[in-house]
Amino acid sequence: MSKHWVTDEDTAVLTDLYELTMLQAYWKLEMRDEAVFSLFSRRLPERRNFLLACGLDEALHYLETVRFSDEALGYLATLPQFEPAFLEWLRGFRFTGDVYAVPEGTPVFPEEPILEVVAPIAEAQLAETFLMNQVHLQTLLASKAARVVRAAEGRAVVDFGLRRMHGADAGMKSARAFYIAGVDSTSDVLGGLAYGIPVAGTMAHSFIQAFDDELDAFRAFASVFPDTILLVDTYDTVEGVERVVELARELGADFRVRGVRLDSGDLAALAFRAREILDAAGLHEVTIFASGGLDEDEIAAIVRAGAPITGFGVGTAMGVSKDVPALDFAYKLTAYAGKGRTKLSPGKRILPGRKQVFRMEEEGRATGDVIARHDEELPGRPLLRKVMEGGRRLPDDGTDLREARDRARRELAQLPERIRDLAPASPPYPVTLSPGLEAYLDEVAARYRRPPLA
Amino acid sequence: MSKHWVTDEDTAVLTDLYELTMLQAYWKLEMRDEAVFSLFSRRLPERRNFLLACGLDEALHYLETVRFSDEALGYLATLPQFEPAFLEWLRGFRFTGDVYAVPEGTPVFPEEPILEVVAPIAEAQLAETFLMNQVHLQTLLASKAARVVRAAEGRAVVDFGLRRMHGADAGMKSARAFYIAGVDSTSDVLGGLAYGIPVAGTMAHSFIQAFDDELDAFRAFASVFPDTILLVDTYDTVEGVERVVELARELGADFRVRGVRLDSGDLAALAFRAREILDAAGLHEVTIFASGGLDEDEIAAIVRAGAPITGFGVGTAMGVSKDVPALDFAYKLTAYAGKGRTKLSPGKRILPGRKQVFRMEEEGRATGDVIARHDEELPGRPLLRKVMEGGRRLPDDGTDLREARDRARRELAQLPERIRDLAPASPPYPVTLSPGLEAYLDEVAARYRRPPLA
Repeated sequence: MSKHWVTDEDTAVLTDLYELTMLQAYWKLEMRDEAVFSLFSRRLPERRNFLLACGLDEALHYLETVRFSDEALGYLATLPQFEPAFLEWLRGFRFTGDVYAVPEGTPVFPEEPILEVVAPIAEAQLAETFLMNQVHLQTLLASKAARVVRAAEGRAVVDFGLRRMHGADAGMKSARAFYIAGVDSTSDVLGGLAYGIPVAGTMAHSFIQAFDDELDAFRAFASVFPDTILLVDTYDTVEGVERVVELARELGADFRVRGVRLDSGDLAALAFRAREILDAAGLHEVTIFASGGLDEDEIAAIVRAGAPITGFGVGTAMGVSKDVPALDFAYKLTAYAGKGRTKLSPGKRILPGRKQVFRMEEEGRATGDVIARHDEELPGRPLLRKVMEGGRRLPDDGTDLREARDRARRELAQLPERIRDLAPASPPYPVTLSPGLEAYLDEVAARYRRPPLA
Repeated sequence: MSKHWVTDEDTAVLTDLYELTMLQAYWKLEMRDEAVFSLFSRRLPERRNFLLACGLDEALHYLETVRFSDEALGYLATLPQFEPAFLEWLRGFRFTGDVYAVPEGTPVFPEEPILEVVAPIAEAQLAETFLMNQVHLQTLLASKAARVVRAAEGRAVVDFGLRRMHGADAGMKSARAFYIAGVDSTSDVLGGLAYGIPVAGTMAHSFIQAFDDELDAFRAFASVFPDTILLVDTYDTVEGVERVVELARELGADFRVRGVRLDSGDLAALAFRAREILDAAGLHEVTIFASGGLDEDEIAAIVRAGAPITGFGVGTAMGVSKDVPALDFAYKLTAYAGKGRTKLSPGKRILPGRKQVFRMEEEGRATGDVIARHDEELPGRPLLRKVMEGGRRLPDDGTDLREARDRARRELAQLPERIRDLAPASPPYPVTLSPGLEAYLDEVAARYRRPPLA
């Protein structure tokens, strides 16, 4: 039988082959000491002033459930790399470590750990690919959505992106990430089912096209859904709006259509024109909803123009984070066997050891972060907390969806205006290393800087 | 219990809400006539001269298996839109239609149908979101990968992208799309398991870092995997290569290390330097593998420079199709109740009716395509074939993985050089409409062009 979907049965092997070869080496070499791995972004893309941490729930679910199935072990046995005794060891593989993380919906900045895993090295190593895949996805999408929500300045934002998102898993989990970032609702029914998020939708061109006449289509759809939003751009937007007016005349007091949707052309200009037509017919309560290739920049321009649009359907640009479809995420070994670890490759430094991030605040406004060693006591609010112990999730692990949405709203409101803005912030949000961490980094790096061989 | 994964149980509701509201309207209005929907790309992004059609297997699997589960129906019953009798009708929902499609691995061009669905309108309508989501994903990734393979000019290409792909489903299915496009192997173990694709991998920085000394790490890893590829850039690439030479001296005849991997810095320059060092030590058989932020342009530059690199690990740029993370895909009603249908929105024309694409060939070289009505007989090779009848897949439905890979290689080789090149093709590949389709489009469009209302 062919495989179509990834489930908990498969997550152990939704990983890079090298994780498994390294596991065999750790096993064979009896390397079982405790490791610390940090998941963080190395830098921000130009069009992001912050990231919104998301995806922890999926990360913790994985760590609690990861197992090698018979199917997976059977497959690995067909590869030349693996010894039978190692595969037997994999059969008993469980994650038994601890995790420290920032709660979902927390704005984070470069080099700040989103989560840190503390576990025997093999357990923490295996998790690399999966944790990155899932935390990257939701953080990427939430960070983009926060910009869209910002641009809409309180107008409704509806997620329309499912059809061009990258696959089914992104299709479902995007709804969660977007909701945390402040998006109002989603067209994605499974997102609604899975997370209890409000779902929304109007009608497609195909419905209109299936009728010989646009007005017939409007009349028919409104007979089934009286308070619907009618899509007016199938043939000509202005004529479409005029047909809505015609329907209103026909139906009289029974006319309850809630709005019209514009989906192509110059949305701001068409919105002004549509408003005029609707108002002239006394249809003041019929709102105008816009969609069609929108991103945060276009929404900001529409809002700036004062166009009478009350909500936006945002698809592909948000659904694949089109301007920035990937973040420079890393999951790196920062300690092993009690020693801090780093890397000297250019542009890829690693902050050694377990860490804490302190967010400094003045009068309710975040003024900067300090990344410190985990046991330092510094002014400011510590962002990382223990969320898993001995492989079990702790209560209040920072993944409750409604709390995460509230947190994001609260924490974003607290960021300096220039950081919340769409334009690249200058200067960027201040993030510094504590003197303690700075000194530790130097100490660890010095261990690896040697004179070149002769 | 919270939901973490999409499976066959969920695909019916991995859809936009409006598909379901439209279904209720069709049901209520007793609209049960046959519809034709076409899935196609409206235009090519500047950096794509063709698309490689992929994802049909998943599309057909969906159409064969789509059902509304009790969980889905229970959820829909909580929404205000849906009537109990309609939900009962959904319980019996099956796809009973026909599908025509181009086989996977076929290069396609704007407005050419990748697939056409012929079914009672509700059945074809529901499928919109899911079919687009899945066919878009695999076509997007295969189209990108074909460029990377082209740039590598016969050198090995290994997919390293799983960690930054958009979620688990993309993580698994990307392996299939990449394989069809000619990628040699993947780091993605589940991709290997699911599709029987070769898997590959080396080692990570974390393994090196877990040792106090790089040479100790190399020695240890080679003791477990003698014919491994050693990652040399953790501290300093040139010193890393020198340590491999040192290991070779130590091990003498037992030294079987197959290669070194460069993962940062100026890869071409470092490859020349590494080759010198290895050759000077007599290690001519140790190859150089490169990775680290590579895309097709960088690979082409490295190949042009003649750098002694035998294989490339390609991650994020290919894994999210970074330069073009979404295609302008559409799934549009082209006929209903025996009448052709179109749309007049600017830039969004729809070619009415069922269609066929004829690929013209001269001396084994594709010279251009003609999109025609489905029943026209024109010169050239017809690309669409019937792959599903009455809701059941037909034998030889164009989805066999190995055949699709062979097909892609064969069909790409047949395209004009300028179309296969990385640079934007000028002129683009010629695609025209048959006079018959042209006339039909005019006829259908004329039906919808009316004088504006007074």
